[in-house]
Amino acid sequence: MRRELLEQLQAGLAARDRTALAVAFHRVHPADAAELLAQLHPAEVARYLEIMGIGEALTVFEFVPFEVQKEALEHLPRESLTELITQMRPDERADLVEELDEPFREQVLSHLIKAERQNILKLLTYPEDSAGAYMTTDYAELRPRVDVRAAITQLRLQAFTKETIYYAYVVDHNKKLIGIISLRDLIMARPESLVEEVMHKNVIALRVDTDIEEVSKEMVHYDFLALPVVDADGRLVGIVTYDDVFDVMTEEATEDMYLLANLDTDEKVTSPLLRSVKLRVPWLLVNLCTASLASFTVSRFSDTISAYVVLASLMPIVAGLGGNAGTQSLTVVVRALALGEIKVRGNWRVLLKETGVGLCNGVVCGLVMALVALVWHRNLALALILWLAMILNMIVAATFGALVPITLRRLRLDPALGSSIFVTAATDTGGFFIFLSLATLLLNELLQHG
Amino acid sequence: MRRELLEQLQAGLAARDRTALAVAFHRVHPADAAELLAQLHPAEVARYLEIMGIGEALTVFEFVPFEVQKEALEHLPRESLTELITQMRPDERADLVEELDEPFREQVLSHLIKAERQNILKLLTYPEDSAGAYMTTDYAELRPRVDVRAAITQLRLQAFTKETIYYAYVVDHNKKLIGIISLRDLIMARPESLVEEVMHKNVIALRVDTDIEEVSKEMVHYDFLALPVVDADGRLVGIVTYDDVFDVMTEEATEDMYLLANLDTDEKVTSPLLRSVKLRVPWLLVNLCTASLASFTVSRFSDTISAYVVLASLMPIVAGLGGNAGTQSLTVVVRALALGEIKVRGNWRVLLKETGVGLCNGVVCGLVMALVALVWHRNLALALILWLAMILNMIVAATFGALVPITLRRLRLDPALGSSIFVTAATDTGGFFIFLSLATLLLNELLQHG
Repeated sequence: MRRELLEQLQAGLAARDRTALAVAFHRVHPADAAELLAQLHPAEVARYLEIMGIGEALTVFEFVPFEVQKEALEHLPRESLTELITQMRPDERADLVEELDEPFREQVLSHLIKAERQNILKLLTYPEDSAGAYMTTDYAELRPRVDVRAAITQLRLQAFTKETIYYAYVVDHNKKLIGIISLRDLIMARPESLVEEVMHKNVIALRVDTDIEEVSKEMVHYDFLALPVVDADGRLVGIVTYDDVFDVMTEEATEDMYLLANLDTDEKVTSPLLRSVKLRVPWLLVNLCTASLASFTVSRFSDTISAYVVLASLMPIVAGLGGNAGTQSLTVVVRALALGEIKVRGNWRVLLKETGVGLCNGVVCGLVMALVALVWHRNLALALILWLAMILNMIVAATFGALVPITLRRLRLDPALGSSIFVTAATDTGGFFIFLSLATLLLNELLQHG
Repeated sequence: MRRELLEQLQAGLAARDRTALAVAFHRVHPADAAELLAQLHPAEVARYLEIMGIGEALTVFEFVPFEVQKEALEHLPRESLTELITQMRPDERADLVEELDEPFREQVLSHLIKAERQNILKLLTYPEDSAGAYMTTDYAELRPRVDVRAAITQLRLQAFTKETIYYAYVVDHNKKLIGIISLRDLIMARPESLVEEVMHKNVIALRVDTDIEEVSKEMVHYDFLALPVVDADGRLVGIVTYDDVFDVMTEEATEDMYLLANLDTDEKVTSPLLRSVKLRVPWLLVNLCTASLASFTVSRFSDTISAYVVLASLMPIVAGLGGNAGTQSLTVVVRALALGEIKVRGNWRVLLKETGVGLCNGVVCGLVMALVALVWHRNLALALILWLAMILNMIVAATFGALVPITLRRLRLDPALGSSIFVTAATDTGGFFIFLSLATLLLNELLQHG
């Protein structure tokens, strides 16, 4: 089916046959058509735009991945390029223009009329992760003193060019946002009522510089379809819609997972090999430093290890289990911070609980390991040292696991950033130090029992 | 502000003053009101329901967290309970009833009329993670041969009881789904057109037993507001809406993060201490087994370590870096599988790339570490052994990091499930074995240079 469509598409492009192209995509959703287009050469995508006409092709083109869009643009003749940029949705257009190389960007902007150019340049000034960077300026607008019947007519007329007409925003003569009304409210209201009588006046709006993660949280909290974005003076400048939240949630989850695994957030599974290496090596080198610290700690105890070499085989267990327990605490806390489940106050409660969990886990797992060691090496002192070391290191692990992300958040950094390196450094160095110190203190007992 | 509202709310409840309660929540969004309610005792929540009247209170109550809803129910008198359950949205109602303890559930169900009871019982039969478990049966329905004007009137009449009227589903006399039309399409169409003339006939619908993760992916792919769910015969049984996708995306991300950190998905940051211990210990015990395997591996090389004890301090570096590199590969692949970025075919490409990344990372990081070791211990043989061991173990790490989740997916298991334990087992045991084997083979050179 897909294969067939792709062939139909290529044949249509080769023959410059508009009807064939229209037929090929007739029964396909634009998102799926875009997926097919993305498999072609950028020059062919550009040809598709030209043959179909920009207006028609745009519904599909807006679903085409960014990278492909960008390359396709370079194959478009000047007039089509201008038409395309003019007709795209403001938010997508700004995102695209932002990605273009400087000379090409200038060229594209120069083709636009002044108002369009200013709109793009304004959208480009918002910080990358702000509401302003994600919002669209294509919202449906109403005035307070029109009646419901006229309002519905106005929305009908606006429908072609707006991202959503299911929420309409009511503004005064200064563009100040004074109310919000859903299309559902409108069609349920008496036609002769005024908009200002039926609109919701307690508008929940966010400032244009709000972090998009915060915007996304609010929308999920309220189950909103769209959220209005205002400037410092309360003037409506755009809206963020539910599909933006889909994207943000995906990006945020990827970011947290990547940071917990010490990965650069720019990496993708499809990144070329050498790019992946370049992105991963710095993290590994940081890890090398903390690992060297642990190694140095072990080297301070060479005499003890030489005297009782069994220690060398058991010390990785203490460190490893600590690492695992620390990652558990870390992940629970990082996720809770991301979802807003932990308030700014009351963090010490979480910390205390994690420390308690570390203690209990240490008692249980340490006991199991101590018994195994007892059976294996028949050395009671060793078993006791192992038990005690595991209890202490699990406490270190859980405490650091909770403390590191909470501290990072207090410093207004991402709670996941580098946190697993900190925690592993603590559990490795701590584990070796605790275990080998205890062994050194009790070396005589160890050797007697051994 | 919040504190004030809470006091107002409590005073209103104590005085059983309906007006005071209505005033307190007048300017507050139901989601925020629910957050305040959730801070009260469940008996007070029940009292709120009674004083306000179920119909009024429900808009707020539907935002109250599950656990609180459940406990509040136990404090409601019989008639209010029946009214509440009857009036709740079908999907939320089924979720709630499912959570009740058996005798209480029977009691609640016995209060309902037969049709309601059957609706709930039917929703309960769908598997936990299926579209059926998430969908609502409150969708807007139209018939094909009514005209647009009548259709809008019908939607207006349905609006009170439906979760969304922005998409309406067109069914034939057998309830078979034959088209879909948005309210936007309807208000833009000529009033005298027939629904069947303006509806979209290429409906994208999913089967009721589809995994909800799949449903969520489809909705994100198409930017849908809602997606229809059909039974095996193509009959419409419900819809999944964008706010369900918000929840699913959050849950799925938490699940993947938790599984990568060896955490049970039932755990929350607010779980009581002993429950957290109970949920984490099994994972730690599994980790204890794999750590013991690594420990056993080291113990086989006691003679080598005794002969050159520096090895004991360096071996954790080889294992630790491998663990970190393995986690990087694992996370990239798990995330790509979750987002559908890796197709079923072509997995070997990903595997090959990761192995290549492992090789390069090993060459770079191994070289750095070898130089450090050379300066520190002034032993060329040691430096070379370290370099080679790190290259080999990074290859093991990256290969396992990619192979484990891909294999789990092929076995139709969650790609993240237990995967980090497998990978760490491979990098620990592998790291120690490779490093100490090389050292044993080249022991004479090691001691000569040392």
